[in-house]
Amino acid sequence: MLVFGRNVAKEMLKNPKNIKSIILQDSFDDKNIISLIEKDNLNYKYMSKREIDHLIDGVHQGIILDIMDYKYYNLNDIINSNDSFIVIIDHIEDPHNLGAIIRTCEAAGVDSIIIPKDRQVGITGTVMKTSVGTVNDMKIVRVSNLANTIDKLKKNNFWIVGTALENSVDYRDIDYSGKIGLVVGNEGSGMSRIVKEKCDFIAKIPMYGKTNSLNASVALGIMVYEVVRNRK
Amino acid sequence: MLVFGRNVAKEMLKNPKNIKSIILQDSFDDKNIISLIEKDNLNYKYMSKREIDHLIDGVHQGIILDIMDYKYYNLNDIINSNDSFIVIIDHIEDPHNLGAIIRTCEAAGVDSIIIPKDRQVGITGTVMKTSVGTVNDMKIVRVSNLANTIDKLKKNNFWIVGTALENSVDYRDIDYSGKIGLVVGNEGSGMSRIVKEKCDFIAKIPMYGKTNSLNASVALGIMVYEVVRNRK
Repeated sequence: MLVFGRNVAKEMLKNPKNIKSIILQDSFDDKNIISLIEKDNLNYKYMSKREIDHLIDGVHQGIILDIMDYKYYNLNDIINSNDSFIVIIDHIEDPHNLGAIIRTCEAAGVDSIIIPKDRQVGITGTVMKTSVGTVNDMKIVRVSNLANTIDKLKKNNFWIVGTALENSVDYRDIDYSGKIGLVVGNEGSGMSRIVKEKCDFIAKIPMYGKTNSLNASVALGIMVYEVVRNRK
Repeated sequence: MLVFGRNVAKEMLKNPKNIKSIILQDSFDDKNIISLIEKDNLNYKYMSKREIDHLIDGVHQGIILDIMDYKYYNLNDIINSNDSFIVIIDHIEDPHNLGAIIRTCEAAGVDSIIIPKDRQVGITGTVMKTSVGTVNDMKIVRVSNLANTIDKLKKNNFWIVGTALENSVDYRDIDYSGKIGLVVGNEGSGMSRIVKEKCDFIAKIPMYGKTNSLNASVALGIMVYEVVRNRK
């Protein structure tokens, strides 16, 4: 998997064992990054800007890393751990949204993330980049069936909280002190019907303008920090 | 200014006077959108997918609108109004971030937004699209000098709140009940020094992971809804 850009490179260089190889533009002169690459004896080569532009569609800032694919965790790893705050992703399509969600979860101390296998962006280079490398610090589980997974979590004493506008309560009026599974819905269509039916609580973030929705990663950020406020 | 995609088209068609002309792909069959275009007697023409792909770099879903450029407000319009909750943008570079910020502000009932003229993305088609058309429902002011603007706001009884990690207080411990100007810093470098020095309060969103920052639009969403909690 290819990732590019200086910020994500610096994050990746904290775990050099995940790096297979590195391509630098021949004019690359970030001495800090170069010294990290040489210290860890990483495999790298130089290319011209023209060759790199051909490889990558995006702002690479003269550095591309070929890194190991993300190794997903199993649901049992999560259920048999002490994890008590999980985010469940109900079909996010935009890699920038998924990356921002992972970054928020890592910053807020969410224990793990569950994503479905189908109709869902996986951990791509763009997700890795948008997450500023925090993907490597998060436990992410990929499951075939979200509804069955939620049933298993509920049997293990998780309360499932979704967000929607209808049939919902103010997000500030929910008690988040137990084990919580927070669901993020799809960017366009929100939570799927079957997932919504499994929620113990449906939370609503109040809206005061003409628009009646927020960007998925912004809404998740507001919800996650509301859970944090109740728990820490 | 060109915008594209069905969602933003539907938003734009609510204010048809802003639409100069429309291009539809010859196979375009969204009857709802077509009937709105015909009802308002808008100027439109058909093109092949190949011609449209040539015009637009992005997922156009068969519809492009040429719309009027955004007409910025003046600072005096804001100062002489009853606006009491303003967001001040200290050099956001990514149009997706600016669009998500405008969408959040509109949803949360922020009264107006101030952006600087330099080193700052303006209201482009991508901003319009990412904001889901909410740009047209927001008062946005563009100023040459953010520091002078903040001085004027302070003379008009605004309290200026920035976000940073150092020399800051927990964002939940600030009284947001007066007139508030909330500052969003740059994606990479945060607030500029001169703007930071003018803040009455510096707020910190607590971080519990290895990363020590959030995406700019996510952080703004958390801050805006904290102000809302204090006021509504």
